[in-house]
Amino acid sequence: MDRKLILISNDDGIHAKGLEKLIEVVMPFGDVVVVAPGKGESGMSHAITMKHPVRIRKISEEPGLTKYSCSGTPVDSVKLALNKILTRKPDFIFSGINHGSNSSISVIYSGTLGAVTEGCFNGIPSAGFSLLDHDPDADFTLACKYSSKIINNVIKHSLPDGTCLNVNFPVIPADEIRGIKVCRQATGVWKEEYDKRIDPYGSDYYWLTGDFNNFEPDAEDTDEWALKNKYVSVVPIKVDFTSFEALDIIRKWDFS
Amino acid sequence: MDRKLILISNDDGIHAKGLEKLIEVVMPFGDVVVVAPGKGESGMSHAITMKHPVRIRKISEEPGLTKYSCSGTPVDSVKLALNKILTRKPDFIFSGINHGSNSSISVIYSGTLGAVTEGCFNGIPSAGFSLLDHDPDADFTLACKYSSKIINNVIKHSLPDGTCLNVNFPVIPADEIRGIKVCRQATGVWKEEYDKRIDPYGSDYYWLTGDFNNFEPDAEDTDEWALKNKYVSVVPIKVDFTSFEALDIIRKWDFS
Repeated sequence: MDRKLILISNDDGIHAKGLEKLIEVVMPFGDVVVVAPGKGESGMSHAITMKHPVRIRKISEEPGLTKYSCSGTPVDSVKLALNKILTRKPDFIFSGINHGSNSSISVIYSGTLGAVTEGCFNGIPSAGFSLLDHDPDADFTLACKYSSKIINNVIKHSLPDGTCLNVNFPVIPADEIRGIKVCRQATGVWKEEYDKRIDPYGSDYYWLTGDFNNFEPDAEDTDEWALKNKYVSVVPIKVDFTSFEALDIIRKWDFS
Repeated sequence: MDRKLILISNDDGIHAKGLEKLIEVVMPFGDVVVVAPGKGESGMSHAITMKHPVRIRKISEEPGLTKYSCSGTPVDSVKLALNKILTRKPDFIFSGINHGSNSSISVIYSGTLGAVTEGCFNGIPSAGFSLLDHDPDADFTLACKYSSKIINNVIKHSLPDGTCLNVNFPVIPADEIRGIKVCRQATGVWKEEYDKRIDPYGSDYYWLTGDFNNFEPDAEDTDEWALKNKYVSVVPIKVDFTSFEALDIIRKWDFS
């Protein structure tokens, strides 16, 4: 049987510890090509670079593992991999392991998940992995163990058409984990508090800060509940923005 | 009755003709505050600026209309407006009129729609408007006429909780328009063909180009069909990435 060809990306950039850890987890499953942003691209969502050209650079090559850095976003990285770098369509795309949560509504801000949904649009089974710890030197022991279990299942079963996975890991000692919970995305919103400062030249500038407000903290079928209760959360995701339940309401409007 | 407070943004930037046209359409409905990127931010999706500070600058102020430019993305613009610029929560957010299509899967790449969904997350009835013409001097006559009809309805009826609108206008003579069609997002994918070039210093670089592949060109309930058949397309959208139909499939996996 041919070895699997697996594309890896992330949004923390080619030098992130979480990326190294995901490579270690994935390498036993096939030949790995990494195409990841050269610098941190957190919060870049599904952004693509249209007003500037993008560049790619081969970083290293060893048996079963080739790495490229990309000057653009995570989605640019996946697009360039599929169009210019890989000689065939990859069998799977995995993204992460992100330094920080991508649960609930964070899925739409996340560059890690941007890479995943881009793979999904192209018919490639894809999954993103995130650890609820922003520390550049975070402990990925638990995340690696459970990423491997989940990747094993993705490779064995594939994924339903148009579906990918958003996996998040709580920050708890490995022996306290209660298992994996397949759940839905909690509803909530990030409430911003911009930190206003004055630069050395007397002008204002603002840093984005904020807290997540969970609209349904007691809903046991959500990713937020799972993570707070010491589970790994696995949310199967798809991208269709249509609000089917609103179609009939809007159709009753008078546009004359 | 108090006048409505209406926030306007876009992704083509504060100087775009489409933004000027949307302001003209909206001003009869209330007091308008514009917070838009200082430069073009097409393709920025739901990106937020986390690694740099952002800045805002008041551009102009006249009765019923104040304009600010923002150094960040469309979503940054909305977040700063809600958190730092506006003295109260706006009644509505409108974004556009975009120079270029945001139908089908383009909704996820679009900065115009990023601003809209950010408004929606914050409980504000929001709608985005896009004309299928990238020309900086495009003719917005038809787009303005129909934007006004739709905005009139949004203000009259509001929108269901968690729902916003993605409106696209075809490029046809105004007298050929067949009306407004409320429809779902077509399924399809952008197939990239990166244009590889060599810079004056001998290094490769790539420009993103591509064509949209519609997976269901004959589906009459889609936005792509509506636009091709001379309708204005109105897609009610919401953001919940959960694939509810996949939950039971993934729950059967063996994670031991």
